[in-house]
Amino acid sequence: MGDQIYIGVIGETICSEETAQVAYEVGRRIGERRAILVCGGRGGVMENAAKGAKSAGGLTIGVLPGPSRDEANPYIDIAIVTGMGEARNIVLVQSCHVLIAVEGMYGTLSEIAFACKFGIPVIGLKTWRIDRPGLTHSPILQAKTPDEAVEIAFQIIRTKEKE
Amino acid sequence: MGDQIYIGVIGETICSEETAQVAYEVGRRIGERRAILVCGGRGGVMENAAKGAKSAGGLTIGVLPGPSRDEANPYIDIAIVTGMGEARNIVLVQSCHVLIAVEGMYGTLSEIAFACKFGIPVIGLKTWRIDRPGLTHSPILQAKTPDEAVEIAFQIIRTKEKE
Amino acid sequence: MGDQIYIGVIGETICSEETAQVAYEVGRRIGERRAILVCGGRGGVMENAAKGAKSAGGLTIGVLPGPSRDEANPYIDIAIVTGMGEARNIVLVQSCHVLIAVEGMYGTLSEIAFACKFGIPVIGLKTWRIDRPGLTHSPILQAKTPDEAVEIAFQIIRTKEKE
Amino acid sequence: MGDQIYIGVIGETICSEETAQVAYEVGRRIGERRAILVCGGRGGVMENAAKGAKSAGGLTIGVLPGPSRDEANPYIDIAIVTGMGEARNIVLVQSCHVLIAVEGMYGTLSEIAFACKFGIPVIGLKTWRIDRPGLTHSPILQAKTPDEAVEIAFQIIRTKEKE
Repeated sequence: MGDQIYIGVIGETICSEETAQVAYEVGRRIGERRAILVCGGRGGVMENAAKGAKSAGGLTIGVLPGPSRDEANPYIDIAIVTGMGEARNIVLVQSCHVLIAVEGMYGTLSEIAFACKFGIPVIGLKTWRIDRPGLTHSPILQAKTPDEAVEIAFQIIRTKEKE
Repeated sequence: MGDQIYIGVIGETICSEETAQVAYEVGRRIGERRAILVCGGRGGVMENAAKGAKSAGGLTIGVLPGPSRDEANPYIDIAIVTGMGEARNIVLVQSCHVLIAVEGMYGTLSEIAFACKFGIPVIGLKTWRIDRPGLTHSPILQAKTPDEAVEIAFQIIRTKEKE
Repeated sequence: MGDQIYIGVIGETICSEETAQVAYEVGRRIGERRAILVCGGRGGVMENAAKGAKSAGGLTIGVLPGPSRDEANPYIDIAIVTGMGEARNIVLVQSCHVLIAVEGMYGTLSEIAFACKFGIPVIGLKTWRIDRPGLTHSPILQAKTPDEAVEIAFQIIRTKEKE
Repeated sequence: MGDQIYIGVIGETICSEETAQVAYEVGRRIGERRAILVCGGRGGVMENAAKGAKSAGGLTIGVLPGPSRDEANPYIDIAIVTGMGEARNIVLVQSCHVLIAVEGMYGTLSEIAFACKFGIPVIGLKTWRIDRPGLTHSPILQAKTPDEAVEIAFQIIRTKEKE
């Protein structure tokens, strides 16, 4: 399993029905293509993405903030218990080849920032837009649909593999 | 010293002469007003802010990423050695009442995100602008000068104290 | 996979041939019994335990200290990249139902200490003995063979499940 | 303040009156000799050590586990807020030149282990005794009184400075 591809799906614990559906579709496509889905292991976007991956027979990892595996949602196969609160975001990010952000608030923004810092590509679905003086192009690749987001993710991974 | 005010100054290890001057002026005003300056303890914005604070007789704390206090710049009074790499950003942020971001790249953005997550106000000087669908106003208070940035910081702290 | 059992095997990066064999046998028995083997993901005891688990068709997780999955040994199925140095020990420990310590130096001792702190049972094979004034019995269950160590681990887990 | 000496005092949140007195005396001697006292910032041994240091006009740092500075005891000058739970132990340890352990349970043992790992000397007062097969001498320097413990700490620091 050393050649496994890890794709993170990040977003909030609480989300709308529409966003839940987007997360589910992203997860399903990741599972269908036999990549490992990594998420924060809790509710909302994380739960729906994991549910989607499991519906396609995929494998899911939850990197949990609290001190117990009981907070994992029912679609998590592998629970990593950090007990470090929000510092677990940095573990989640570094464990992925690429991240897909589905909406998201400040926790998600911290993950986007760490990913950019570590050179891990980020694809966004209705997520943050970031800018600073002197930045020539945004590091977040904005996608319009779950299909497009997952397609971009695998294109990036294939391009990296050829290098 | 239980009533001490902790103000974080965040930004990059390498910066232009102009940005260094801005950081120095921010630090000097923090030192003059007897708040504790907290930073990442290294070069660039961190070093110049600490230098400014020391020029006014202030106290400085450096929350270091690496495993040794030797990486602290010469203007750090108190070195906290985390050995946790970028995960130290979350320690720095939570140790402050308010943050002033001077330019900054992705490490700084991660600190801004954590601050917003934890409800710690952020004042920006030529730093990141962030936006997402549904966000009604940016949580980053953009200032134009070091004077203005530090003035806003103390206004926020005074307002909180009255609550 | 929510009922999965996670067993950690902890020990040093460099070890004798004899210790490597002990780690391998511990890992093999864990794999045979379909528990997930969790380790630090690197060489020595970690690599040999993972190798043993894989020889029996088991699943292995490596919780890595550095910033890259490249440091994982070839028998790791799931690599968790923390980038937090020795602070990853606390993530490894909390992710396990029970730990088996095979020899080990100070890193292993830190893991034993955290496990005791969090109420996670520790079984020892030629590992640390710890004592303090007032301690009525050691929290480390000393075993003599890999067979015995893994047998005790599963007895503990079965007992907990009945509770 | 770059030449400052940082001495950690580690132990439990709840302790007997006698142990509190020992911690106080250790802290007082550290304060008298103008070293910075570093501790976990909470009650018991930490609070009494900090109280002792303040009684002698010393400076105290508390490296807190939770997300708020409100959990600091009243004798802490500088509060570092980690929000990382027990992972803060590794920050505390690495920020010290030498550690003095006053009794202590498993959290203290994790700090002793990390200190040994990083080559930071540990002096013990009625604390853990640790042993493993092949260990020729214990790394913990056992002292009988607060006086002796602090005296050993400064001897070690002076010896290191001459190197």
